[in-house]
Amino acid sequence: MSLLSPRSVALVGATEASIWSANLIANFTDLGYTGHLHLVHPDRPVQFGRPCHPDLAAIPEPVDHAYVMTGTGAALGVIEQCGRSGVRSVTMLTAGFREVGPEGELREAKLVARCQELGIELLGPNCLGFVNVHDRVPAYGLLLAAPLQPGATALISQSGAMLLHFHRMSQQRAIGLAHMVSIGNEAMLGADHFIREFVGRPEVRVVGALLEGIRNPGGFLEAAALALAAGKPLVVLKVGRSPAGTRSVAAHTGSLAGADAVVDAVFRQHGVIRVRSLEELLETCALLAARGWPEGGRTAVITTSGGACGLVADLAQGTAIELPDFAPATKARLAALLPVFGTPQNPLDTTGVIVNQPELLGACIEAAAAEDGYDALLINTDPPREPGPAPAALEERLAGLARALDSAPVFAGLAATAAVDLTPFGRETVTRHGLHFGNGLELGVRALAHAIEYGHARRHPPRPAGRGGRHPPPLADGWQGTVSETAAKRLLEAYGVRIPPEWLAAGPAEAAQAAAELGFPVVLKVQSPAISHKTEVGGVRLGLASSGEVQAAAEAMLESVAELGLGPVEGLLVARQVEPVAELVAGIFRDPQFGPVLVAGLGGVFVEVLQDASLRLPPIAHSDALGMLGELRGVAVLEGARGRPAADLDAVAEVLVALGELALDFGDRLLALDVNPLLVLAAGEGALAADALLVLDATHQHLEGGKT
Amino acid sequence: MSLLSPRSVALVGATEASIWSANLIANFTDLGYTGHLHLVHPDRPVQFGRPCHPDLAAIPEPVDHAYVMTGTGAALGVIEQCGRSGVRSVTMLTAGFREVGPEGELREAKLVARCQELGIELLGPNCLGFVNVHDRVPAYGLLLAAPLQPGATALISQSGAMLLHFHRMSQQRAIGLAHMVSIGNEAMLGADHFIREFVGRPEVRVVGALLEGIRNPGGFLEAAALALAAGKPLVVLKVGRSPAGTRSVAAHTGSLAGADAVVDAVFRQHGVIRVRSLEELLETCALLAARGWPEGGRTAVITTSGGACGLVADLAQGTAIELPDFAPATKARLAALLPVFGTPQNPLDTTGVIVNQPELLGACIEAAAAEDGYDALLINTDPPREPGPAPAALEERLAGLARALDSAPVFAGLAATAAVDLTPFGRETVTRHGLHFGNGLELGVRALAHAIEYGHARRHPPRPAGRGGRHPPPLADGWQGTVSETAAKRLLEAYGVRIPPEWLAAGPAEAAQAAAELGFPVVLKVQSPAISHKTEVGGVRLGLASSGEVQAAAEAMLESVAELGLGPVEGLLVARQVEPVAELVAGIFRDPQFGPVLVAGLGGVFVEVLQDASLRLPPIAHSDALGMLGELRGVAVLEGARGRPAADLDAVAEVLVALGELALDFGDRLLALDVNPLLVLAAGEGALAADALLVLDATHQHLEGGKT
Repeated sequence: MSLLSPRSVALVGATEASIWSANLIANFTDLGYTGHLHLVHPDRPVQFGRPCHPDLAAIPEPVDHAYVMTGTGAALGVIEQCGRSGVRSVTMLTAGFREVGPEGELREAKLVARCQELGIELLGPNCLGFVNVHDRVPAYGLLLAAPLQPGATALISQSGAMLLHFHRMSQQRAIGLAHMVSIGNEAMLGADHFIREFVGRPEVRVVGALLEGIRNPGGFLEAAALALAAGKPLVVLKVGRSPAGTRSVAAHTGSLAGADAVVDAVFRQHGVIRVRSLEELLETCALLAARGWPEGGRTAVITTSGGACGLVADLAQGTAIELPDFAPATKARLAALLPVFGTPQNPLDTTGVIVNQPELLGACIEAAAAEDGYDALLINTDPPREPGPAPAALEERLAGLARALDSAPVFAGLAATAAVDLTPFGRETVTRHGLHFGNGLELGVRALAHAIEYGHARRHPPRPAGRGGRHPPPLADGWQGTVSETAAKRLLEAYGVRIPPEWLAAGPAEAAQAAAELGFPVVLKVQSPAISHKTEVGGVRLGLASSGEVQAAAEAMLESVAELGLGPVEGLLVARQVEPVAELVAGIFRDPQFGPVLVAGLGGVFVEVLQDASLRLPPIAHSDALGMLGELRGVAVLEGARGRPAADLDAVAEVLVALGELALDFGDRLLALDVNPLLVLAAGEGALAADALLVLDATHQHLEGGKT
Repeated sequence: MSLLSPRSVALVGATEASIWSANLIANFTDLGYTGHLHLVHPDRPVQFGRPCHPDLAAIPEPVDHAYVMTGTGAALGVIEQCGRSGVRSVTMLTAGFREVGPEGELREAKLVARCQELGIELLGPNCLGFVNVHDRVPAYGLLLAAPLQPGATALISQSGAMLLHFHRMSQQRAIGLAHMVSIGNEAMLGADHFIREFVGRPEVRVVGALLEGIRNPGGFLEAAALALAAGKPLVVLKVGRSPAGTRSVAAHTGSLAGADAVVDAVFRQHGVIRVRSLEELLETCALLAARGWPEGGRTAVITTSGGACGLVADLAQGTAIELPDFAPATKARLAALLPVFGTPQNPLDTTGVIVNQPELLGACIEAAAAEDGYDALLINTDPPREPGPAPAALEERLAGLARALDSAPVFAGLAATAAVDLTPFGRETVTRHGLHFGNGLELGVRALAHAIEYGHARRHPPRPAGRGGRHPPPLADGWQGTVSETAAKRLLEAYGVRIPPEWLAAGPAEAAQAAAELGFPVVLKVQSPAISHKTEVGGVRLGLASSGEVQAAAEAMLESVAELGLGPVEGLLVARQVEPVAELVAGIFRDPQFGPVLVAGLGGVFVEVLQDASLRLPPIAHSDALGMLGELRGVAVLEGARGRPAADLDAVAEVLVALGELALDFGDRLLALDVNPLLVLAAGEGALAADALLVLDATHQHLEGGKT
């Protein structure tokens, strides 16, 4: 992307009346830009004491990049000028496009079309520009304080102003940056383009993003997959809640998951680290850029104050950080290092003697790292604030710390005790020693937890997205709208999902006879395409124990349905009643952004009251399906809590994998599939879809074969 | 407490060889102490270029306070010197007492006894001392950077070193402090003493504390009650997990709640704000000290950047902060203020025009505050970093902001966008204008949520703790160990708790006859003091529908219990089987720190799998009991989720209030009471204790009456 490294930049629409112009000129002047800066304004020959060209063509050298600050109406004309003058990339600060409604949207479409025709890369419109820190290109509309400290984190933001805060925080903490890009309306270059770009650049090790919406979900997931494969963590502060989906979904599993839960699940599945605040975004990027990530969660904590031990343990609780105690041999080794009143346990307090024996910290790090039981070391010590009375000793201490981190056989990171900005001396010193101190224990622990999650994601990448051109089985030809339970079950059987022994009876007498053959007790359910939720209209009876009961119940049911005016009945489904170990809800719903989403939850209070469900995008592997079940708060129910038998998790996983394949085969045609309940038997005995609700698009023209 | 304001201080054990001595002399010299400082060392006439007295008696003026840094062995002798010289208060940095084991504990007890005899107030031992900021007494063993900024927050800490970090953070954010106290071993003066002291001092508006354990739970709760009544918020960072209680509790409700869950519940009940990190501790204290607290959670958010709106809304989710939208009239008023592209909704973005129209912020604040729909205003704007090009305009803007906050008819607070320390100019400026900016949106939102919780606690103070000298009803005379179900139920009935219709039968035939009289279906349960968990030994049968079934089940049950060698059976309890709306678990267990704790949870998966329980210390009022139920994650089950009838919450509340009274009547004698299940019928129909397990102390000598 040539946009990020222009050797000459023209500020188009530069005027002393605009704060943007003043900021940009100050940024280009004060932050070390080595290329040429030109001003362009149609009728002001001098601005800011500099010559100002009437148009781009008047500039006496090739211009790589135009930063456009004109009025909305003049924007397209500037693009034409760029085309004529060979300007290959444009930042457009100018607003008044998609963000102002349909008219602006049309204006934006024209702008993009013209840029495409002219081969121009367009950033924005309605953005604040970008900063390329390594090449010192500060093409950003707010005033940046010096210096630009080069580093390995690239940040992408929909909110341009937040970059200023991110930059200020990083500066105060001596955290170097590689790039910052304000993407604005993402008319041509969106978040996904910049993720790909940064993943491909050698100076970038971590990509951060601050997003309110995901403009191009498919592109985003592809870029995320590239980032994960490349080992360049993608850390996203996704703010705002997506608007509720516009289509009404009949099946109730759809209501389990707001769109934000989908974002959470999709991010986790694709190794995208989700953070909750600007501070957490910065700290997570900085730790990953400085130290990489651990291969697991087992963490040894070494502190220089007893107060920090309990604090770290508390903060780590409920995160991916585990704090197993030291092995006996390590305890013995540590006991020999510590004073008699020290306690060799994890988290470890080096005790106050550290003040007089600074080398003790390195020795403790070495002892803990030597044990083969840890994936990570977290060291709580504070960055220096002043040279102090013994500057040489301080230097040696910091050099020793850097050596200890770099020679540790596992991941090792530092965290300060409390969140305080570095002093100028501290910034210079930690930068010179290549040290990064997490900004206080709370943020340091959160960043470490994210690094551990990232290592997990690297070891468990998602299955590649499914290919297009897939078809449902022929039996579904011509199906549309709500499909009957029996038809939906035939479809599930075609995907290898088992159904309880059952019979579709035409009337009460046949139902009674079928029940006798299936064996008692039985379940009786009315079958009608007009009835989605049978229980609510008296269309389900459980535990019928004799032919007489079945006949009577069937008659009552038909009468009740007829009274409610629910139209013609397809029949009465009689099924052998199975006593499962657990009841699950499994299904598919469509997310407006990410398409079909698999959902699994425990039945009863878990989904209805606790909204406890686990989501994934298909396709999923068997191990992913087991992971979904492991995420449920009620997972103990499946694992055989309190003397109950364990449920057949493998059978459930097979069902979920099959539902994922089904979802991809149907594609856009599938609105919702709800298997509720999925009766899970004891381990080795399988899982049975006792009811199924399938809703297909009623208007879908399926062009891609199938109608043989 | 005269300890905090000494006009003359002696450093006992002062020596150039000690870093503590050097730090203390620097603190007293550089931070504006106006009293007299004396050095004492038995055999060094000059230290640090100052005269050094051989003992306290040699000091030629009265000494108010001795700061003792001698070896452990010399400590008691110094106390004797203090007694002779009329020194009335001592800080003891010297270690080697309770923290080193039984020998040290004895040494500490002697120290305390001697101080009590001599009328000396003792801080520590094994502490770092204290800082009285308003009187400029920096009697603290680590080097403090100047200046000491006076403010309204007093901080108490078991970890002395953490005070240094707290002080540094507060300094960088221009947050004034009143006191900091390192309480060390709390041999004489503990956390509760200082809470009381600070609550009584006019310069203190908020008390913060960093505690690893609560040494004196009763004193702590009394001090917390005083603080709540005085409207001086107590904000506690309670780190570390209490060790598991030492007594084994037979009833399983006890296992629901780790000791930390008790701390959580007790704090919430007593209006103590619990925070999770040093940063949150500082920010919460600072906001409460600067702005007080709102009368409710309805919050209008006003930001100066669109990016902040979604971020604040996300951060507020799941907290006490509610963000209802503006009323139509307010929307109209805001629409008239905002530019055409602005959107008058909550959270409100004033849009980028704020750069050129700073007065817009005040106008928006006024418009939002004028609506009678809000309890709080949260304003996101950033503190100044430099005077900038228009210092006078900046001054006017800040003065306007201060006026807008102070004239707002409801609580109004500020939060910066990102956590960055203030510049020296920023510190001076915000202090001069009396402004406090929350340190970034994340901490700002958390602090506001805590302020809202505090307002709630002020409106719902706990019932005063029960008085001593209470007795259980005479029927419990002589009871000890595990009490039979029937006896436990008689006790519950004495407290007004209802029991299902039931009969204790001697054998199978009587059981069958009783069942016929009670009406079918019935439950049959074996009764034996040796059997705590009847289900696990086949001692419970449900749904018995005829006399024959009852007789057969009773015979089988007696046989099974006999085979397991479970000793003599008291009888067979036959009870009419009731179909409740919901099943609860209610009970009492003993916390090693706080004594009897009431617990309530939903039965089944909620307590067993999800550990979903709500805790309180008795006594509780009816409204507290309803509050307990409201905290349960599964509360929707009780409120009539998905067409089920609502449960009789009032009846449950009455049971919980009664259990609280029972717990206080029995006092230490009660180890556990477990009502499981408590069958809750539909609203207005009551709640029935279907089973009860009572465990009393087997060795308790109850001296206080009862044995008539």
